[in-house]
Amino acid sequence: MRTSFFTSETIADGVVERDFQVGDAPGVLWSPASVSPGTPLVLMGHGGGLNKRSPGLVGRARDAVLRDGFIVAAIDAPGHGDRPRSAEDQHWVDTMLAERAAGRSMAATIAAYNGSLAERAVPEWRATIDALQELPEIGAEVPIGFSGMTLASAIGIPLAAVDDRITAAIFGGVFVYEAITRAARQVTIPIEFLLPWNDDEIDRESGMALFDAFASQDKTLHAFPGSHFRVPIERIDTRFFARQLRREGSIAA
Amino acid sequence: MRTSFFTSETIADGVVERDFQVGDAPGVLWSPASVSPGTPLVLMGHGGGLNKRSPGLVGRARDAVLRDGFIVAAIDAPGHGDRPRSAEDQHWVDTMLAERAAGRSMAATIAAYNGSLAERAVPEWRATIDALQELPEIGAEVPIGFSGMTLASAIGIPLAAVDDRITAAIFGGVFVYEAITRAARQVTIPIEFLLPWNDDEIDRESGMALFDAFASQDKTLHAFPGSHFRVPIERIDTRFFARQLRREGSIAA
Repeated sequence: MRTSFFTSETIADGVVERDFQVGDAPGVLWSPASVSPGTPLVLMGHGGGLNKRSPGLVGRARDAVLRDGFIVAAIDAPGHGDRPRSAEDQHWVDTMLAERAAGRSMAATIAAYNGSLAERAVPEWRATIDALQELPEIGAEVPIGFSGMTLASAIGIPLAAVDDRITAAIFGGVFVYEAITRAARQVTIPIEFLLPWNDDEIDRESGMALFDAFASQDKTLHAFPGSHFRVPIERIDTRFFARQLRREGSIAA
Repeated sequence: MRTSFFTSETIADGVVERDFQVGDAPGVLWSPASVSPGTPLVLMGHGGGLNKRSPGLVGRARDAVLRDGFIVAAIDAPGHGDRPRSAEDQHWVDTMLAERAAGRSMAATIAAYNGSLAERAVPEWRATIDALQELPEIGAEVPIGFSGMTLASAIGIPLAAVDDRITAAIFGGVFVYEAITRAARQVTIPIEFLLPWNDDEIDRESGMALFDAFASQDKTLHAFPGSHFRVPIERIDTRFFARQLRREGSIAA
C-alpha cells in the first residue's frame, strides 16, 4: 500500500473526500465513511471546459456515495481544472469560441480537439484505475462504472472500448465524429445513452446513429427536451449503476 | 356509498383485488391491504388483443401496489377480455391479421379500429374515474396516473387530452395516426414515452414525431432495442409515478 497516494483528506456531511495524483492527472476520490468489501467504483468524467470539482459532478458524486454507497473517482482532463493547457489545446479552444460566436460550424475543431484529448485522457484513466485498484478498500475485483456527457463521453467511449474493467456506462450529449462511432462499435457493456432533444449544437440524428452503433445488447436511450447544458437527472435516473454494478461478481451479464 | 359496487374481493400475497363493472366495462381494482388517505390511483390500460388481467398488466399492478403503495384500476376495452366483440370489430381484427399474414400494411385498418375503440373507451374510462372517485378510500382529490402502450396509448392519449383529472402518464409503442397526434398536442401533463427502437410494425420516426407533438414541458423519451412485444421495464423505470403522483396536492407542477 502506497503511503502517500492521497495528498489530502476531508470529510463533509458523511462523504470522505481525498485528493490524489496519477502521472499528470490530479484526481479526487469520494467514499462513504466506511467502505464494505466489494463496493462498486464509479468513474465520473467532466464536460468540456469543466473540471473534476464542477458543482454538477460533485453533486452527482455525493449522491452516489450517500444514496448508493459507491466510491466515486474523477480526474481533470488535460488542460482542464488546475492542469496547464498546451498552446495547441488553447488554439483549438480559441477557434471553437470564434466559430461559435460567428455562427460557423465547430465540427472539425471539436473532432480534432476532443479526439486529441481522448488520446491523452484514455491512458490517464487506465492508469487511474490501475492505481485505485491497488487500494485495499477497492482492489482488483470491484465492479467499475463510467459516466459523463459531452467531453467525458468523447473520452469514455474509447476508454470503455479498450478497458474491459469498466462493466457499465452512461454516455450522452456528445458531439459525434468518426473515432467515437468506431469506438462505440467496440462497446458491448450495458449502457444508457442520454440524448438532448433540442440541442442547437448537437443534432439528435447523430446521437441516434451513435446509439445504433453501440454493440451492447443491453442499451437504452433517454431523450429529454432541451440541450446538453441542462440534463434533468431525476427524470432519467433508472438506478442504472445500482442495478448493473451490484450484481454478483464484476462481470456484467 | 354504493353497497354493491364491487362484485368480488380476494386478497393474495398482500394485494387486495376487487372486481367491478361500470356500464358495459368490467374492471378490477388492486389495493394495498390498508389504504391511507391521498393514496394515488394509477389507471393501467391493456394492449390490443389483451385484457385487464393479462399477466404483464397484473404483474405491473401488483408491483405498483406492493412497491409504491398505489391503488391500480384496469378495465377491458370494448370487445376485449370477457366483453362481446361486435361484428364490425371482428371484421377489423380479421382484416388486420390477413394484412399482417400477407405482409401488407395494416396502417389504415389499425387507424380505423383503434380510433373506433378509443371513441368508445374514453367515455368508459371517464365513467370509471367518476365511479372510483365516489369510493371513500379514493375520493375526488387523489392524484391519478395513466399508463399503457399500444392500444392503451391509442385510448389513453385522447383520454388525457380531455380529462384533466389525469395528472401524469406513461405512453408508448403506439401505432401513430392523425387523431392520436392531434390529441397529443392537447396533452400538457408530465409524460414518459416508451419507444421500441426496432419494431417491424411501428417505425421509430413516427414515435419520435409523436413525442415532439406532446405539448408537455416535462416529457422524456425512453428507447430500447426490440419491439413493443418485449418492454424491458426494469431498465426504463425512473419511478415516474412515485415522483409525479406523490407531490403535494393533485395538480402536477
